[in-house]
Amino acid sequence: MANAFFSDLLSTISERGRILLGRAVPANDKQDPSELLELCEALLSGRGEASGTAMAREVLDRYHHLDATGRLSFFQTLSRDFGPDPAKLTQAIDSWRARANGDDASDLHFASEPRRQELIRRLNRAPGGTGELVSMRTDLLSLMKGNKDLAALDRDVVHLLSSWFNRGFLVLRRIDWSSPANILEKIIRYEAVHEIRDWDDLRRRIDPVDRRCYAFFHPALPEEPLIFVEVALTETIPGAIAPLLAEQRELVAVERARTAVFYSISNTQRGLGGISFGSFLIKQVAEELRRELPKLDNFVTLSPVPGFMPWVKQSTDVPLSDDDRQLLESLDKPDWFENADLAAQLRSLLEPLAAYYFLKARTSKGRLIDSVARFHLGNGARLERINWLGDLAPKGLRESAGIMVNYLYRLDDIEKNHEAYANTGEVIASSAVKKLLKGEGRRLLDMRLG
Amino acid sequence: MANAFFSDLLSTISERGRILLGRAVPANDKQDPSELLELCEALLSGRGEASGTAMAREVLDRYHHLDATGRLSFFQTLSRDFGPDPAKLTQAIDSWRARANGDDASDLHFASEPRRQELIRRLNRAPGGTGELVSMRTDLLSLMKGNKDLAALDRDVVHLLSSWFNRGFLVLRRIDWSSPANILEKIIRYEAVHEIRDWDDLRRRIDPVDRRCYAFFHPALPEEPLIFVEVALTETIPGAIAPLLAEQRELVAVERARTAVFYSISNTQRGLGGISFGSFLIKQVAEELRRELPKLDNFVTLSPVPGFMPWVKQSTDVPLSDDDRQLLESLDKPDWFENADLAAQLRSLLEPLAAYYFLKARTSKGRLIDSVARFHLGNGARLERINWLGDLAPKGLRESAGIMVNYLYRLDDIEKNHEAYANTGEVIASSAVKKLLKGEGRRLLDMRLG
Amino acid sequence: MANAFFSDLLSTISERGRILLGRAVPANDKQDPSELLELCEALLSGRGEASGTAMAREVLDRYHHLDATGRLSFFQTLSRDFGPDPAKLTQAIDSWRARANGDDASDLHFASEPRRQELIRRLNRAPGGTGELVSMRTDLLSLMKGNKDLAALDRDVVHLLSSWFNRGFLVLRRIDWSSPANILEKIIRYEAVHEIRDWDDLRRRIDPVDRRCYAFFHPALPEEPLIFVEVALTETIPGAIAPLLAEQRELVAVERARTAVFYSISNTQRGLGGISFGSFLIKQVAEELRRELPKLDNFVTLSPVPGFMPWVKQSTDVPLSDDDRQLLESLDKPDWFENADLAAQLRSLLEPLAAYYFLKARTSKGRLIDSVARFHLGNGARLERINWLGDLAPKGLRESAGIMVNYLYRLDDIEKNHEAYANTGEVIASSAVKKLLKGEGRRLLDMRLG
Amino acid sequence: MANAFFSDLLSTISERGRILLGRAVPANDKQDPSELLELCEALLSGRGEASGTAMAREVLDRYHHLDATGRLSFFQTLSRDFGPDPAKLTQAIDSWRARANGDDASDLHFASEPRRQELIRRLNRAPGGTGELVSMRTDLLSLMKGNKDLAALDRDVVHLLSSWFNRGFLVLRRIDWSSPANILEKIIRYEAVHEIRDWDDLRRRIDPVDRRCYAFFHPALPEEPLIFVEVALTETIPGAIAPLLAEQRELVAVERARTAVFYSISNTQRGLGGISFGSFLIKQVAEELRRELPKLDNFVTLSPVPGFMPWVKQSTDVPLSDDDRQLLESLDKPDWFENADLAAQLRSLLEPLAAYYFLKARTSKGRLIDSVARFHLGNGARLERINWLGDLAPKGLRESAGIMVNYLYRLDDIEKNHEAYANTGEVIASSAVKKLLKGEGRRLLDMRLG
Repeated sequence: MANAFFSDLLSTISERGRILLGRAVPANDKQDPSELLELCEALLSGRGEASGTAMAREVLDRYHHLDATGRLSFFQTLSRDFGPDPAKLTQAIDSWRARANGDDASDLHFASEPRRQELIRRLNRAPGGTGELVSMRTDLLSLMKGNKDLAALDRDVVHLLSSWFNRGFLVLRRIDWSSPANILEKIIRYEAVHEIRDWDDLRRRIDPVDRRCYAFFHPALPEEPLIFVEVALTETIPGAIAPLLAEQRELVAVERARTAVFYSISNTQRGLGGISFGSFLIKQVAEELRRELPKLDNFVTLSPVPGFMPWVKQSTDVPLSDDDRQLLESLDKPDWFENADLAAQLRSLLEPLAAYYFLKARTSKGRLIDSVARFHLGNGARLERINWLGDLAPKGLRESAGIMVNYLYRLDDIEKNHEAYANTGEVIASSAVKKLLKGEGRRLLDMRLG
Repeated sequence: MANAFFSDLLSTISERGRILLGRAVPANDKQDPSELLELCEALLSGRGEASGTAMAREVLDRYHHLDATGRLSFFQTLSRDFGPDPAKLTQAIDSWRARANGDDASDLHFASEPRRQELIRRLNRAPGGTGELVSMRTDLLSLMKGNKDLAALDRDVVHLLSSWFNRGFLVLRRIDWSSPANILEKIIRYEAVHEIRDWDDLRRRIDPVDRRCYAFFHPALPEEPLIFVEVALTETIPGAIAPLLAEQRELVAVERARTAVFYSISNTQRGLGGISFGSFLIKQVAEELRRELPKLDNFVTLSPVPGFMPWVKQSTDVPLSDDDRQLLESLDKPDWFENADLAAQLRSLLEPLAAYYFLKARTSKGRLIDSVARFHLGNGARLERINWLGDLAPKGLRESAGIMVNYLYRLDDIEKNHEAYANTGEVIASSAVKKLLKGEGRRLLDMRLG
Repeated sequence: MANAFFSDLLSTISERGRILLGRAVPANDKQDPSELLELCEALLSGRGEASGTAMAREVLDRYHHLDATGRLSFFQTLSRDFGPDPAKLTQAIDSWRARANGDDASDLHFASEPRRQELIRRLNRAPGGTGELVSMRTDLLSLMKGNKDLAALDRDVVHLLSSWFNRGFLVLRRIDWSSPANILEKIIRYEAVHEIRDWDDLRRRIDPVDRRCYAFFHPALPEEPLIFVEVALTETIPGAIAPLLAEQRELVAVERARTAVFYSISNTQRGLGGISFGSFLIKQVAEELRRELPKLDNFVTLSPVPGFMPWVKQSTDVPLSDDDRQLLESLDKPDWFENADLAAQLRSLLEPLAAYYFLKARTSKGRLIDSVARFHLGNGARLERINWLGDLAPKGLRESAGIMVNYLYRLDDIEKNHEAYANTGEVIASSAVKKLLKGEGRRLLDMRLG
Repeated sequence: MANAFFSDLLSTISERGRILLGRAVPANDKQDPSELLELCEALLSGRGEASGTAMAREVLDRYHHLDATGRLSFFQTLSRDFGPDPAKLTQAIDSWRARANGDDASDLHFASEPRRQELIRRLNRAPGGTGELVSMRTDLLSLMKGNKDLAALDRDVVHLLSSWFNRGFLVLRRIDWSSPANILEKIIRYEAVHEIRDWDDLRRRIDPVDRRCYAFFHPALPEEPLIFVEVALTETIPGAIAPLLAEQRELVAVERARTAVFYSISNTQRGLGGISFGSFLIKQVAEELRRELPKLDNFVTLSPVPGFMPWVKQSTDVPLSDDDRQLLESLDKPDWFENADLAAQLRSLLEPLAAYYFLKARTSKGRLIDSVARFHLGNGARLERINWLGDLAPKGLRESAGIMVNYLYRLDDIEKNHEAYANTGEVIASSAVKKLLKGEGRRLLDMRLG
């Protein structure tokens, strides 16, 4: 209620950004990378220092008008010619080696810093610079395919963006129906898990009392949600996605909600690829919700299992008999799940197999196969439940025969779970999941393996 | 007018900060640095990663309760034991040397990064972390005196803070009488050039139509002005400070103002010492003012000359005769400037001498002697005018025999001026200043030098 | 930039409103108007005074649960039994008459105030009360049909709402693509002139650089635009609506715009019917635009002529010959306007007739026939141009054979134009419009009239 | 968190106000009331309607330049010549009388409305108009002294301001150390009960964790707190003011606070005299505090008793013997309260007498004598405690021999207490207060009365 003064800081940033969007485009559209590189050298000099932000602005403007070839050439030069000064580096190595106490490598570290890092920091000074650097990284990622020589540049860009998009600089904001349309439009566009079809569909996700949406923002990109999570408040842990997204459904009175379901998390900025916000987002949203609604005591996901059927089909060490394989072919029939007998047969086969997939199966390097599982288990969550017929949409059927899972975030156990997983590779799972690998489930698998 | 949504981002940050200030202090006040260092190791591990921001918060809390001895010990360990892994570094050096194309030093650079850099980045993740790191730097600066072994740590801290307080992340805000009292209180406290005595004095600096005050803020420290500048709008370039600060004075109607006078610039955060914002601030404020008041055409400072009298008194190569020296002793008389004859005599001696001080005199390393001059001339300003009896306050009399100067910022000349100064050491000055070294002024000095 | 503190005032109001929306609904849905009326009496008493806002809140809650019959009965009682005290009124009349100086009617005025006025003022004290009173008025307007006895109540409600929605309390806000979705949704819903089909259509109206939308808000209803106007910036005065609303069109660079076209004005609150904001809105938006874009020099509408064809068809004194009447029947052919000959014929008939409609034709009471014309001419605009084939949408063809007109707002002439119109009934029109009644146009009409 | 859009509404208002303050003042300072009155007539006409807000603005500007004589003349004309139309009024009276059903007095009411009411409503349309009307009322109050003929005008002004400053339009805001200085400055200036000496003193009232300050604002005057209350959070009900205001004192941890003490309430706008906000403020602040701090269970004032000693000294029916009177003369001795024996004697006399003052003494018209008591008891509070030596400041000693009282607001009892007080004149008091009138206290008083 009190600090409205500070609240204007960001609208200042935001307006500044808008003014820039309207700036006149230089008449000469075709830019020459060599001129641009000269300007980069100047920006690194004392003259660039004295210019305030004007020269940085000009570099970014000229970059903007390069075509793909020009950008590739520009990036290649940065990668090749904007490294450290080799003479100084050699000297620093020698000094370090000469010293008895070899551990002060400070000079060596700074002497080995590529000049392009300072260049990027100076580009960031321009109004709107941070956003344009993120866009530049998007270009870079595209151009890297087949151009291995850009890897060193990318490493530097990622290093700086990681530092600048440090969790401490991110701001959590709730997104709801009173949020600005230009933000909401991005939520529609970037939702990557369960597509948002239109504005009505969006409204059903963010407006009802039992729905929440939160995003991380960075002050330098105030109109860009960096990552967002959609949450459903429910009484019990849900096992299927369709009822959560249904157009017609009964709302859950907030005071009766005991469970917060994180059913979709989406990153939005390709240019920030490799910089991870998801774990922080889930944990902070869980804290916010617990503060607002002290009665909540389950924080779970409802997650897809994108690697399951590919593994079943392609891996050579799946414990399946020929009969099993034959049964699995019935998954190709449309609407097989409406045949109760068939579905029951498949369930008795696939549920234990899914448990095996999570608890036992590993890649040749010993890693968990499922990328979503790696994310949540690496965050310290536990595998809580395997849900039969959780997602009957085409993608869900194709990827996991409709199976979804819940990962449970229990704040007190997160570090411990992570440790177990990280040190011993153990997947922390509920007894219900483990039980699928015992008794009848076990017998079936054993039989097959035997 | 439009982007109010974004404006709330920062109030969120700000409120979060306030909540933290109220957090319970652990009962056990006396902290043990060794426990703290263990926690730092954990924070650097995967467990620290999984903990979200909690472990970073705990490190900062524990640090907070260390006494000076504990802090010194903590810093020393960071400096000594949180460098890079020597084995990996040696290997990276060997690889780099082995390669034909020696210029890809990327692996070497990252292998030489001290582990404390990542530690600092992880500490920054905690809510309020950035501000606490700035405070930690303040401690570090105090403890560095006589502890050379902290230099490597300080270099890393400065490296990260410089990157995070990049100009692109700073937000310019006008400060006026409707600003929050907790911000204004800091303006009073931190004003370093012309003391603000009380709230009435403050009001005279920020409230009248012909006065402005601007500050840079960082989104992660929304209640802390990092640097601020006080501006007077005037018709002509002023030569003395007292009339600008007088309690009773005639206001200048804004439409008649042609000159913006930057008469005071103050940094506020000791912990950000060595990270320079001043040049950016002056240039952006000049742009803002020009946009608001297109009739403004002079952007000048009214600056002290803190090194002048020390130089006159202590330097061995000041072109002064014995008679001159004797005349200068009259500066010790109280209120000498009220004696018109004496003042005239002193003026004919000191004005050319001041011109000499700026244009000719240099340190043994060839640098300009005056720190304020180095700042403005390094920014690309030009030395516009030497003002006799510009500051009759005790400090002004003591430091510069009352002389003040104007530095002129002409945006179109900034790069050029900087270049001349940087490359050839030439001080760009107005013809009026140069003339002081010619004609009569020249003759006097020559005579003395002769 | 400075006054963020105050900006929070309204978000406070707005949040308060949201909290209320979530309030528990009393179990007993069926309300008894008589209990409600007792509560109204209590609210008017000292007890109501002491209750703060609680009793007002309760009255509004109970009203909310009345069905239509209950509401009618409630309104009837307010109309019948909550008038002034007849005894006091009689006494005040007598006092007034007795006085030599009959002009101090103050006692009489206050003695004649119906008690329901104070009741409504006290209801307004409840949080969210203003909005609920506006809704109540909406109910009242529905129930008034056929219930003449509610007129006195309505007169009091309108009297108070007019006073509370005084222009001085309204705030103009620009609506754009960064406005909250819940506001934008209302723009879609309430657009009354040229339907907004969906969110994409909305975006085309408010997001491009050459489009503007402004609304008046009242601080007590911060989420409700009361009236809004859509504006197109163009180079010249447009004569047709379709190009303005086209999906694909060339944007007008803002610096080349000379004309602001008010092409749609919509009221949103039925409950504020009879309280006019439009004239203030147009004038303030014109001022805002002129401040932002000093090169704008035409402020015009592009308006429908809803009364034209009904007048042509139904009025007895339309100067049309039988041949003309026959020609007009061709308007029933689909796409008649694509037949160039026919269209030309119709044009030579209908343009002069439209000029006659505006300049000469009057109702039996001597008023202008066209409601839109009455609004703009009453505001002091002048009739600038009659546009043939301005609106080929079904409604436009039906209402005005596709004719649209421009009304020109020239701020310096507004009072003068209004005076002429108000005092002498003269419609101020451009010479182009007047010329349609001279020369050939005149001849045609004369001929017909002859 | 969500509704930032709306939050900008008021900053718009606020900025608009500031722009106006800077508006050029007409050269001709001396205004002629007769021209102004002509302009008022024009404003009431259709021409005024068409002018938007320009003509209202001009009336206010011209008024601003009238001197006191001009203003008096202006007000007198409004009072005399801007009443209702007598002919229409007479006709409305006749119609009303003629009707069988005499209760529809609607026409009569509107016919008797003075034209100045509509004039004031139209003046309010001007930007900043509301604030200027409040100032105009301040002038009016000054000029009314000795000018009875202005009463009718004042009645109309108050009628409209009451309606516009309806509690439903007021917004409660917390004032703290992050509030804008221009607001805080007004808190210092307007504090009427316990003077705030300077900014440090202010800070002690609003910044510590156990202090609160709240104000009502009106959206049309966003920089003016209309009324504010200062609150101390304490463990028990305090009996003296000095410890609450002490420079050095122990803070109360918020979680241990059980009592909210309203120790100062001040109105700020003379021009709103007679329009009461205090009761609403206390009740809403109590609700806010209870929501924030559910453990609070006492809401009390610590109030002066300004009428006590005047009553003791001047009233003829004070139950005091000659000996008592003589004892009371010792109150004239400086620092009498430091003489323990004397103080004890005085206490046994004055405490019962104070109880009598509240519970029994009445004015000739039967009203409570104490204005502060009338306010709080009329609001439904109960007299909780009489505090001996509560206020040893000169004013407190003079007014009440140092006695202060606590009034207790118990939300559930407010209506009931008010009813008892309003209907039977009964002062609801705690048994402790009543007991002072029994037993020994009673005996003393009886004796005296006997």
